[in-house]
Amino acid sequence: MKNTLSQRTINRLTQYYTILRDYSKKDIKNITSSQISQLLDIDETQVRKDIKSINCKGKCKVGYSVIDLKSIIEDVLDYKVIKKAFVIGAGNLGVALSRYSKFSEFGLEIDCLFDLDKDKIGKIIDGKEIFNISELKNRVKSTGINIAILTTPNKVAQEVCDFLVECGIKYIWNFAPSILIVPKDVKVWHENIIGSFIQFCAVENIK
Amino acid sequence: MKNTLSQRTINRLTQYYTILRDYSKKDIKNITSSQISQLLDIDETQVRKDIKSINCKGKCKVGYSVIDLKSIIEDVLDYKVIKKAFVIGAGNLGVALSRYSKFSEFGLEIDCLFDLDKDKIGKIIDGKEIFNISELKNRVKSTGINIAILTTPNKVAQEVCDFLVECGIKYIWNFAPSILIVPKDVKVWHENIIGSFIQFCAVENIK
Repeated sequence: MKNTLSQRTINRLTQYYTILRDYSKKDIKNITSSQISQLLDIDETQVRKDIKSINCKGKCKVGYSVIDLKSIIEDVLDYKVIKKAFVIGAGNLGVALSRYSKFSEFGLEIDCLFDLDKDKIGKIIDGKEIFNISELKNRVKSTGINIAILTTPNKVAQEVCDFLVECGIKYIWNFAPSILIVPKDVKVWHENIIGSFIQFCAVENIK
Repeated sequence: MKNTLSQRTINRLTQYYTILRDYSKKDIKNITSSQISQLLDIDETQVRKDIKSINCKGKCKVGYSVIDLKSIIEDVLDYKVIKKAFVIGAGNLGVALSRYSKFSEFGLEIDCLFDLDKDKIGKIIDGKEIFNISELKNRVKSTGINIAILTTPNKVAQEVCDFLVECGIKYIWNFAPSILIVPKDVKVWHENIIGSFIQFCAVENIK
């Protein structure tokens, strides 16, 4: 079903999930579309439409069951199917992403980090070791992991990307602000942090 | 015009801009929709439609002028209107964002960072000082800056958010994985990093 949802809907569902997780921890049983709408500052009709699209039904004046809606989103977005990935580059961004607690809740597990810097190699970040990048190929073979999160500086991004491809990586989540050239069987997802800010400015008319 | 473009279009335009910046540096004069389409792995018709929507015209078999298209995107997305912001939290993510070179090219300037940690206060990150969070209110008054980039851990995010509001911050770009409650005159943009990854998995059908 995930493949039939629009990217915007998927994005909103992950935000609803964040709320549902909080409500669930606080042992709150029900949530209304109006509450979600107010917390996220988005249209209530949109919230209802999204939730209807994943076949979750609410009750009049009561709202949706927090446990049911949370569980349906987990199923629809495959949060229970763990995807493992390597972080390439153990700079501030790489370390921040490796420590990002939310990832594991959403089915993404960081296996380990890779870097060139001898001062960093061998260190442990929240239980994940930093390896020498030269060990990547062996690690891909031994683990079968084919997802890499690229956090290197812009100027070496393409060079590192070529190396990832050579090592057997098939999916690259690219945080470096540059467009990468890859063979057809390798897929790149350009993380567009600044694009998100520009949208914020546009939506709120920030001058 | 920016306000009439969809968020997805704005997102794609920032990606086109990244390519145009590279082409411009390499002194390449023209670019075709087919080249953009291949580099970003998106539909060529979509690229043409987006560029048409910002009133840029190409020439048959030559494509678009790199300088013209770059300049039109800069105008449309207000890259030349500098927006200043504070980074709240000088952990790995806060430091990574402060060092993120792409921001300044897109009109976002980090003024300085704020933290509680005495070991961090006074340090300089790429020319930006880390101040004690207690100085925020004065800094808001003296600079007129009302945008904050929130990078604190989840568990203190709401508490810090309340303090930002008290200090006069009006726009919060929230990287903490939690939904913030704010007064009506304050706007929050939830940065949804994991949502982006879920989209990647959905689009490429990663199992």
